[in-house]
Amino acid sequence: MLRLFVIKFFLIACVLSNAQQRPVTFFTKKEVGEVKMGISKYALLFKSYTQLKNDVDKWVGKDVDVPFPKDPAGGYTHDKHKANYTLMFNSGILYNLTGDAKYATLVKNMMMKYAALNPTLKNHPQATSTSPGRIFWQALNDANWMVYAGMAYDLIYNSLSPSERKQIEDGAFKPEVDYLTKDLKEWFDRLHNHSVWACAGVGIIGIASNNKDYIDIALYGSNKDGKTGFLAQMDNLFSPDGYYTEGPYYVRYAILPYMLFANSLNNTNPSLKIFEHRNKILQKALLTCLQQTNTDGVFFPMNDAIKDKDYTTNEIVTAINIAWKVYGNDNGLLTIAKKQNRVMLNAGGLKIAASLAKSKNISDTYPYKTIESTDGVKGNEGGISVLRNGEENNLTSLIFKYASQGLGHGHFDRLNINLFDKGNEILQDYGSARFIGIEQKYGGRYLPENTNYAAQTIAHNTIVVDETSHFNGVSELGEKSHAVKLFSDISNPSLLVVAAKEENAYKNVQLQRSLYMLQLPEEKKIIIDIFNAASTVEHQYDLPFQYNGQFINTSFKYDANTKKQETLGTKNGYQFIWKEAEATVVDSIAQFTFLNNNTYYTLSTLVQGSAQIFFTRSGADDSNFNLRHEPAMIIRKNGKDELFINVIEVHGKYDPVNEFSSNSYPVVNQIKILQNDASYSVAEIMLGNKKIQIAQCNNNFNKKQNHVSQGLNWEGPFVVMYNEKKINK
Amino acid sequence: MLRLFVIKFFLIACVLSNAQQRPVTFFTKKEVGEVKMGISKYALLFKSYTQLKNDVDKWVGKDVDVPFPKDPAGGYTHDKHKANYTLMFNSGILYNLTGDAKYATLVKNMMMKYAALNPTLKNHPQATSTSPGRIFWQALNDANWMVYAGMAYDLIYNSLSPSERKQIEDGAFKPEVDYLTKDLKEWFDRLHNHSVWACAGVGIIGIASNNKDYIDIALYGSNKDGKTGFLAQMDNLFSPDGYYTEGPYYVRYAILPYMLFANSLNNTNPSLKIFEHRNKILQKALLTCLQQTNTDGVFFPMNDAIKDKDYTTNEIVTAINIAWKVYGNDNGLLTIAKKQNRVMLNAGGLKIAASLAKSKNISDTYPYKTIESTDGVKGNEGGISVLRNGEENNLTSLIFKYASQGLGHGHFDRLNINLFDKGNEILQDYGSARFIGIEQKYGGRYLPENTNYAAQTIAHNTIVVDETSHFNGVSELGEKSHAVKLFSDISNPSLLVVAAKEENAYKNVQLQRSLYMLQLPEEKKIIIDIFNAASTVEHQYDLPFQYNGQFINTSFKYDANTKKQETLGTKNGYQFIWKEAEATVVDSIAQFTFLNNNTYYTLSTLVQGSAQIFFTRSGADDSNFNLRHEPAMIIRKNGKDELFINVIEVHGKYDPVNEFSSNSYPVVNQIKILQNDASYSVAEIMLGNKKIQIAQCNNNFNKKQNHVSQGLNWEGPFVVMYNEKKINK
Repeated sequence: MLRLFVIKFFLIACVLSNAQQRPVTFFTKKEVGEVKMGISKYALLFKSYTQLKNDVDKWVGKDVDVPFPKDPAGGYTHDKHKANYTLMFNSGILYNLTGDAKYATLVKNMMMKYAALNPTLKNHPQATSTSPGRIFWQALNDANWMVYAGMAYDLIYNSLSPSERKQIEDGAFKPEVDYLTKDLKEWFDRLHNHSVWACAGVGIIGIASNNKDYIDIALYGSNKDGKTGFLAQMDNLFSPDGYYTEGPYYVRYAILPYMLFANSLNNTNPSLKIFEHRNKILQKALLTCLQQTNTDGVFFPMNDAIKDKDYTTNEIVTAINIAWKVYGNDNGLLTIAKKQNRVMLNAGGLKIAASLAKSKNISDTYPYKTIESTDGVKGNEGGISVLRNGEENNLTSLIFKYASQGLGHGHFDRLNINLFDKGNEILQDYGSARFIGIEQKYGGRYLPENTNYAAQTIAHNTIVVDETSHFNGVSELGEKSHAVKLFSDISNPSLLVVAAKEENAYKNVQLQRSLYMLQLPEEKKIIIDIFNAASTVEHQYDLPFQYNGQFINTSFKYDANTKKQETLGTKNGYQFIWKEAEATVVDSIAQFTFLNNNTYYTLSTLVQGSAQIFFTRSGADDSNFNLRHEPAMIIRKNGKDELFINVIEVHGKYDPVNEFSSNSYPVVNQIKILQNDASYSVAEIMLGNKKIQIAQCNNNFNKKQNHVSQGLNWEGPFVVMYNEKKINK
Repeated sequence: MLRLFVIKFFLIACVLSNAQQRPVTFFTKKEVGEVKMGISKYALLFKSYTQLKNDVDKWVGKDVDVPFPKDPAGGYTHDKHKANYTLMFNSGILYNLTGDAKYATLVKNMMMKYAALNPTLKNHPQATSTSPGRIFWQALNDANWMVYAGMAYDLIYNSLSPSERKQIEDGAFKPEVDYLTKDLKEWFDRLHNHSVWACAGVGIIGIASNNKDYIDIALYGSNKDGKTGFLAQMDNLFSPDGYYTEGPYYVRYAILPYMLFANSLNNTNPSLKIFEHRNKILQKALLTCLQQTNTDGVFFPMNDAIKDKDYTTNEIVTAINIAWKVYGNDNGLLTIAKKQNRVMLNAGGLKIAASLAKSKNISDTYPYKTIESTDGVKGNEGGISVLRNGEENNLTSLIFKYASQGLGHGHFDRLNINLFDKGNEILQDYGSARFIGIEQKYGGRYLPENTNYAAQTIAHNTIVVDETSHFNGVSELGEKSHAVKLFSDISNPSLLVVAAKEENAYKNVQLQRSLYMLQLPEEKKIIIDIFNAASTVEHQYDLPFQYNGQFINTSFKYDANTKKQETLGTKNGYQFIWKEAEATVVDSIAQFTFLNNNTYYTLSTLVQGSAQIFFTRSGADDSNFNLRHEPAMIIRKNGKDELFINVIEVHGKYDPVNEFSSNSYPVVNQIKILQNDASYSVAEIMLGNKKIQIAQCNNNFNKKQNHVSQGLNWEGPFVVMYNEKKINK
């Protein structure tokens, strides 16, 4: 309560006196001066300025349409209003940079149209969500509009007469603010990315229009009690490490209102130190989400995520430009700025453009590293590890998710793994089923297949028990618990280890997964995946590997469904999967090799007793052709306690141009389990005549504890031997 | 006979006197001097030299393995012998450029091993083809070896003692030459890309070893009568335009022995003017095949073609480096050389490196143009048109194939079309089913699915009658005839037109297809495809469109097979196709929109009476997972005379990063046939309120002939009106 009080106290100064210099939201008068000086100096700033000016100049002197809202996403009125708020914002920037009144007039004329339109609006005719919009089909987009329209208003504030200001504030803004904060009060007060946008919109309009009430509501929620609102969103949606519970795709979206509203607050009341808040949580959020991208900049597709989004999106441009301004130089960001190939016309953009102009040899790859992030406000709700090895395009990234549910956009993917290698997704996450912005595809919204297939456990790379998703596919159940990390060690890049357990996804089934990512002396990369399911009663356990690539061969025989094929199951996502082939494997190691972009990958799995193996492909039950057709190998075991030990081997090279294929066969030729119980798991893996031994303790993760098992003795939770030598440390 | 005599006469001088300066095959002493001077001057030459030197230096002083042949393609002995001939060739080059004897010694030692090995060889244990190899599984690879080993021998000839020469010539070469020209006489004397390699191998060895007999056999065939051999191959495998009857993928392969042997001949007897032969047929062949690539350099995948091969392959590096030397500067080739990022260490490579060093603003795109190539030795066996519109990456290329069978690698694809747009394959050709060089995939050979699926008509974009491929899938029948071009006009880039007919693919069915590629005033691209099937008896006509992209929506209802799916048919490729959905459409235009890389494409098809439409996907009957899973839309009509009129519209833009989708709906909203008979086809297409009228004469293609039909009057085979105005010319 004390902190809340202090912040409130500071906030009083946040409302501008009329005498204070404008602009204050997007940039300040001082920044305007600096940017003006820089435009002729720095190529990227000049280019960005010219691009923006060209975009705006097309509309100067024209009567811009502000249509009555009618269409869903992708339709005319939707896209027009979206284009309009960008245009107003950009024209407002130009007004400040050029001093030319025509840019202010363009904004004013559009604002007046909104001032006339907005009071007449009821819920959008295409509204289908629980938070309907008015200008757009969903309130989220109205909030987007408010963020940019609010800044645009501030940018031309000085050019307006008091009566014009009143007209805009009462007509364009008040109906929207009232609608979001009163009619949609519950939605506004959620802790969720939509509400971050809503608070930023209301807050920026508050700052732009000197409205303390709006600012307080934005900061402390509609009840002004601090339980919700922007600060609560900074406090509750990130873990202390900056991991955003909805995942990187969504922080990519939310980082923009966070940064823009914080920037406006910082300009109007620097003593609030909003960018220092919670140990610089916004900087941590940005850097953490950048670490959660592939080498091509695409965000890891966990939870609802579209695989098209990378760090060149407008949100990340905005975020890194503001971050550079407030947190100072960060050369890693230059790699990203270079790929973005544009900057914002603020002090951060200016500095980035200047740094790019003088920097030679900017790396093509962001400085990726192995990173472990906790989840949960207190950092005690599981987390996510990204194990990494290799330089630049030879980078291998293994993602292990043992986090909490991730709110409504979370998938049922406890203990899921994903693998990226050489820039390609090797073991994939389906991501979300959605064609964002395409009207024909369910109005651009999340498709029914998103919930029915993409979010289900079988669409991931983790165990499904009895053909039922984790938490029976009920988010609310999932939100009550989280997975738990048991131990990890990322101190040695050649041996990265992490283990976690999940005991709530199924009643009476304990899941525990340990991952060992090894770089062997011969530059060979191997991942050993020990995944244990334990129960007191019999279950069917399915472990899918959503491999991405061309099927090369298997070490075992299978029956292919060549003339007719049916679905693998009838519910919980199984109805979307064609069963292409199946095999029964008995007491052996089953090996499957596939080829992805000229590298071979082999999955070797130990079968003790009997297992079924399925080769499948998504795309069944897809009457609207909404799904991608992606292959998987699914290992099925029946029993009470079942161990899945898989070795993933990265090997060889295929050169179709020169017609060479080298090391296309796996080296792994034996997997043995020497012990697997509540105390220890001990495994032996032969790579030709080389031996890997892995032993881990399953009930004591103390780093100083000594253990003896199966002739091995070691300190700490695990040991890995290669050719009889320890390779820990 | 006169020409033959003259060439023979010249050839006498072709055998080197011992006094003549070596080397003579790959390059000459003069070239050696020039290249030596250039290495320090030109970055790309230096880089190429360094790369080659690094590759070779690894082996200097080592005992290089020359293993007894055992493995198929992709296996150790195969890849080793392949690496060996490259190493010998490269080391021979270095010997000349550096004068360092160690490079000659490396080659000599390897040659001596081959001299010991080759006389002991029988047919390769993995030989499965009708032309078994000895060092390799197929004779083709032995011929590859001979080309490079022959040059390597010449490159170190001066360093060898007469007895060493004899040992190599008798041991390493004679058994191979004898085997190819005697044991495989029939194969050697074929007019086929394999035999081009064989002749080049024998000829280059002949030049290197002063063996007139070998040279004569190479040039005139094993009977030395000129009916076969290298000159016959230059005369018979290309059309007068330089179109290679097996298609661009194969000329890519054959161009290398053509160029290398011609180069050796030119060095030893320039008065032969081999590069001038048949109006510079080798230059035409090169430039024609380069025009038959996509903007990314990948060869159009017609006939047996693997889609990985582009113009950066070694063959095209060699070809353009020799072409530059003998035919002089060609700035278009610089684009290619830049992408190849390496040159050969000859005079051509030197000059290209020099040109690259001084050229700024080299285009990223080869200067593609609309090009029509005839097929057949006399240019009277049909041909292929590539209609093109648009600059750089906005290029649209429509490929229309109305050629002859293309020998054994030909597919049953008379009147097939393919469409590329913005660098992407939009209406695709499956190419070939093969994983070249991957041992696990049928020894890297053409897969059974190549013949059984990829070559079949249903895998293409042309009409299949009664579920039977053209010529009943029998190459020998296909080789007896060819399609016939009726008319074309490529003079106006905004209206490109070509029409052809095929009357032999099916008994009693005449097929005629006319393509109109229009660029409308609003920058809109549209292709109108009028495809007529006529017979005296009832047939089932299937017209597939192998679209590449994400299904967006249709204007018609269909039934999807959501729980179970079966194959579309049982034979002639149909057994490899899953039937995902089907529709019956009656008297309407059926529209289907798909999305490929952020551009929308809509196919609008006129249905008069009733038609069935299938949405399918390849991958059935695929027990070894050899096929790609590619979608298609198949239009099925039953009747005697059936007209397929399809409009392909390129439209809109999808921006998933900024979440905009514009013009995602087609504009075409009506298609009418006003007349369609032996005299005229007249169609009317509405694009909103704009009208396109097309009229073509079906029996008189005289450019000066006047026609009147359906109220239109025009001169020449066709007329196209847009908004009542003629757009011809």
